Amino acid sequence: MSSLITPQTLKGFRDALPAQEIRRRDLMAALETSFRAFGFEPIDTPALEYEEILLGKGGGESDKQIYRFTDNGERKVALRYDLTVPFARFSAQHREELPFPFKRYHMAKVWRGENPQKGRYREFFQCDFDIVGADSPDADAEILLMMVQSLELLGAGKVSIRLNHKGLLQLFLANLGLESQAPEILRTVDKRDKIGLEALKASLLELTDENQVSTILEFIAPAVSWKQALERAQNMVAGSEEILKRLREVVSRLESCGVLDRVTPDFGIARGLDYYTGVVYETFLTELPSLGSVCSGGRYDNLAQLYSKERLPGVGSSVGLDRLLTGLEELGLLAGSSRTADVLVMQSDSEPQDASWKTAAVLREGGIKTDLFTENKKVAVQYAYAEKKNIPVTVIPKGGQWLVKRLADGEQSLCSDAAALVKTAKRYL
Amino acid sequence: MSSLITPQTLKGFRDALPAQEIRRRDLMAALETSFRAFGFEPIDTPALEYEEILLGKGGGESDKQIYRFTDNGERKVALRYDLTVPFARFSAQHREELPFPFKRYHMAKVWRGENPQKGRYREFFQCDFDIVGADSPDADAEILLMMVQSLELLGAGKVSIRLNHKGLLQLFLANLGLESQAPEILRTVDKRDKIGLEALKASLLELTDENQVSTILEFIAPAVSWKQALERAQNMVAGSEEILKRLREVVSRLESCGVLDRVTPDFGIARGLDYYTGVVYETFLTELPSLGSVCSGGRYDNLAQLYSKERLPGVGSSVGLDRLLTGLEELGLLAGSSRTADVLVMQSDSEPQDASWKTAAVLREGGIKTDLFTENKKVAVQYAYAEKKNIPVTVIPKGGQWLVKRLADGEQSLCSDAAALVKTAKRYL
Repeated sequence: MSSLITPQTLKGFRDALPAQEIRRRDLMAALETSFRAFGFEPIDTPALEYEEILLGKGGGESDKQIYRFTDNGERKVALRYDLTVPFARFSAQHREELPFPFKRYHMAKVWRGENPQKGRYREFFQCDFDIVGADSPDADAEILLMMVQSLELLGAGKVSIRLNHKGLLQLFLANLGLESQAPEILRTVDKRDKIGLEALKASLLELTDENQVSTILEFIAPAVSWKQALERAQNMVAGSEEILKRLREVVSRLESCGVLDRVTPDFGIARGLDYYTGVVYETFLTELPSLGSVCSGGRYDNLAQLYSKERLPGVGSSVGLDRLLTGLEELGLLAGSSRTADVLVMQSDSEPQDASWKTAAVLREGGIKTDLFTENKKVAVQYAYAEKKNIPVTVIPKGGQWLVKRLADGEQSLCSDAAALVKTAKRYL
Repeated sequence: MSSLITPQTLKGFRDALPAQEIRRRDLMAALETSFRAFGFEPIDTPALEYEEILLGKGGGESDKQIYRFTDNGERKVALRYDLTVPFARFSAQHREELPFPFKRYHMAKVWRGENPQKGRYREFFQCDFDIVGADSPDADAEILLMMVQSLELLGAGKVSIRLNHKGLLQLFLANLGLESQAPEILRTVDKRDKIGLEALKASLLELTDENQVSTILEFIAPAVSWKQALERAQNMVAGSEEILKRLREVVSRLESCGVLDRVTPDFGIARGLDYYTGVVYETFLTELPSLGSVCSGGRYDNLAQLYSKERLPGVGSSVGLDRLLTGLEELGLLAGSSRTADVLVMQSDSEPQDASWKTAAVLREGGIKTDLFTENKKVAVQYAYAEKKNIPVTVIPKGGQWLVKRLADGEQSLCSDAAALVKTAKRYL
């Protein structure tokens, strides 16, 4: 036999073992059920696309991170690095076939060749949802409402969304004569949670004078209510009437369906990406704010401009699945949640060879999720198997009867007919 | 503005539009629910692996089909072309962490650079499930039982599994002195459904004499029962006692849980792949046999031999998801199944701007899956939207009341309070 190949994954890539993968799939399924109830539809796009499509205008930082190569047909191809660019291409390509406003979600892997740091990987899942072909405040509010309801379904308590209108912040800086410094100021303000107030102040002082810095800090300071925040904006940002009217409409929609207590004004939210033009937001778990934003996004003016002359405005978000999973775990919400079957049927040396097989059939007939241990191994090995798979109840055939055992407390009972077996197993769950 | 980029996918790749993607996801979710109830657990592996891992021994036909390239770190990498090789690597790498026998399923995309023919694509989903670290007939029977129950849950009627033991066919040919011609004979016999009996006979005559050809045809001819088939094998294949004992055990397990009527002996099933060593099988929809096999697989002796010295025997299958979807569609089982929301709330010019928003809140509060049309468009456009999304019921606010309409038959009614609105909408579904 030739030498063995070392079984290993590439740097920055990882396998998902069952416990992890069950949780990820369950999380995605829960979100998906909620998205669908709002009329959102799933789509899929290829992992590989023409490089030209994915690079778009090109030249950005992200280009260096893109996995690209020349295929056997001499085409320049690349692996998608997000779900937004493929969606833009998709929307332009299938415009005639889609219902507009088009509400879609997409849960799929993306790849980035960046140097993997702590907690960052070269392959990960994204979960995006958008309404495109939509200009209305209803669309903005619908996305925010869906975020609240979908995330709160996960059982991690209330969420807290920080909401801003990107145009408001830009107009405010323009009024101060800071248009040219605006991009740098927005980037700095975006980091304020990480760096703290003192460092923020110091960074801003490198960009403008003390007077303006204190005006900026006053503008982005927390407000006690939407009323106060909107008044402040009205006073501090000349010419903001249209923007504030829009923001008021979104806020009033959210109030009318009882979720405004989850939405806080935050005029410092800028969302680095250039392409946001309207509402922008970040979402935190109230019980675990230190986790950072688990869902963010905003309104953009034209999704598909690289591929189509028709304007395609929309609003959308991206869920940070990995971060959300970390959060649910930290809140203790995932303990014991990773099993598939409820009962393990074990094998016994002293019984007929098909006794366990027939036992599994009885339990399954009774509607119980049943795992059959298929090999002839020591009982200790079989218990270890049940433990590894978080299976709470075992059944072992015993001279025409069955010994049913609950592993958590060792409670057990001997059943002599099928009905009692099913009933006891269910009671032990 | 610079010139537009043509929005297009690569040759052999395709987007999934909502109707399609909903069906694919629903199919996968249904299979997954069933797999889990048998104690199977999901895993995931990276799309990209070291080329060395995926090529394995290399030199085969499949190597040419593999997408491979050199990444920015000068590593030779490749996109997985199936889920078996990554699973072999995974099993060797995580042996210490996994419960054995390890029951896993994996549903994910694979990529092949082959020239796309009719109905073949360069990117497609695979759905594999296996029990590894298992030698027993229980494991073989468990896989077959799960196949029957999972596929029949889809509502496409009974399935029909054709079952063989690869060792039986090989021993039979060896006894005839046809060991050297065996690979070619197996390939030919595998094609018999496609080419028909006459062409099969002709092809076999190129490989051996008339006498032996008629013996082969006698051996692989359909049997009326397992009893007849097993007797025939006993008579025609000297030295087959061990193999037949094994096959009888598997058959008896399936009989004891009432699914043997779905399993037919077929000594002609060879399954091209070299690595099968025990049971091999193909699965057909009884109501649509012309579709071909929708699920096939078999037992192998050592999954991870390229990566580990420890033997890892197992048994597993692969579901042909695309083919199965085609079959369900041909049987008319997918009509109208692709909607997400049940009710569309429309916008009306003559109502307050937030009337529709509030209507959606009432319906959602009532537990109804509700899509809100967010834009101010003509009523005809909104009806077209409902039709495109297969939404059966519309609601439009009307002077403080609501007009509820069932689109299929045009039945409608005016509701004046929230309770009546919810009740009527539910009645119309």
